[in-house]
Amino acid sequence: MSETAIPGYRMGDSSLPASTVTAKDFANLKSALLLGEADIALLREARAIVGPHVEELLDVWYGFVGSHDFLLASFSTPAGPDGDYLARVRMRFGQWVRDILAADFSPEWLAYQAEVGRRHVVTKNETDGVHGAPPVVPFQFMIALIYPIYATIRPFLDSGARDAAHAEAMHQAWLKAVLLNMALWSQAYVQEGWF
Amino acid sequence: MSETAIPGYRMGDSSLPASTVTAKDFANLKSALLLGEADIALLREARAIVGPHVEELLDVWYGFVGSHDFLLASFSTPAGPDGDYLARVRMRFGQWVRDILAADFSPEWLAYQAEVGRRHVVTKNETDGVHGAPPVVPFQFMIALIYPIYATIRPFLDSGARDAAHAEAMHQAWLKAVLLNMALWSQAYVQEGWF
Repeated sequence: MSETAIPGYRMGDSSLPASTVTAKDFANLKSALLLGEADIALLREARAIVGPHVEELLDVWYGFVGSHDFLLASFSTPAGPDGDYLARVRMRFGQWVRDILAADFSPEWLAYQAEVGRRHVVTKNETDGVHGAPPVVPFQFMIALIYPIYATIRPFLDSGARDAAHAEAMHQAWLKAVLLNMALWSQAYVQEGWF
Repeated sequence: MSETAIPGYRMGDSSLPASTVTAKDFANLKSALLLGEADIALLREARAIVGPHVEELLDVWYGFVGSHDFLLASFSTPAGPDGDYLARVRMRFGQWVRDILAADFSPEWLAYQAEVGRRHVVTKNETDGVHGAPPVVPFQFMIALIYPIYATIRPFLDSGARDAAHAEAMHQAWLKAVLLNMALWSQAYVQEGWF
């Protein structure tokens, strides 16, 4: 699947508004997360390991969402779970994994993450032309899903790591990167000026 | 330090409004976090290990905050860092650790966590009678600090665990519990209806 064939994927789209997160803000955020150059390198090492298994990882995550009705509700209309919506989001979810592991945290990446944040709230459903699904993904579940998204990647890292210490280091870098993303997405949720 | 001597600590105060999180909501949230009975037991095992070292843990965290001006700013007035404010929050922060490790996630605990969330935004500074400090703790740093709060407890767990697997299991339970707390605190930050 080439990136351009992923519906709604807009990384690098110059028509997106720039992120309001300045270079200094972003440096502070990474500093608070203890996310440094070593983590960037570890994420890219993890890319080579996890990259070929992204569909298997998505199977795990979609299995988790699909087995909890209160999570599946975000993708459901009164007619039930919307298969087309789930499939389109899945393609972008896979690309999100690849983009995190590429760890190219550029202004283009920041602009697109701001857009992804908005798509969980004010523009939810629009990108995929969905009608009748809930207008917002509840934020409490965004926070909660950090844990399974962190934990379930570990077997994939283990399978390709040099040793247990290498797997652990890549796993810590992954957690920092997921938290970084969640911090950025939260901008779309919080009250004006509280981000 | 007895709990009643901690200024502003209101766990169990029946004059606090009840949390809007219902028992079913809370069960769902724990389920999304993969937080189960085994984690509750592990947190209580960690309490026996970390409990006697809470002040050392706070030294680490306060050292971290104090070495980052953008974090220290939340505790500062135009006159500089407010030592009394920092000291009062520190006492509650220590009790927060003890309360998480007690893992008594009761309606009283939920009500107090809702209050703690509000104290980061709409009622920040009021509890401690502070004047001139910023009116809000930026949410991006709340998310980011999950990582150091997760990572820096590990040496304390290692020092008292039966073995590495036990330390790791307690550490995972701690991460889930910190995320649970952050999910609850986020209610005070997000737009109405988006929690």
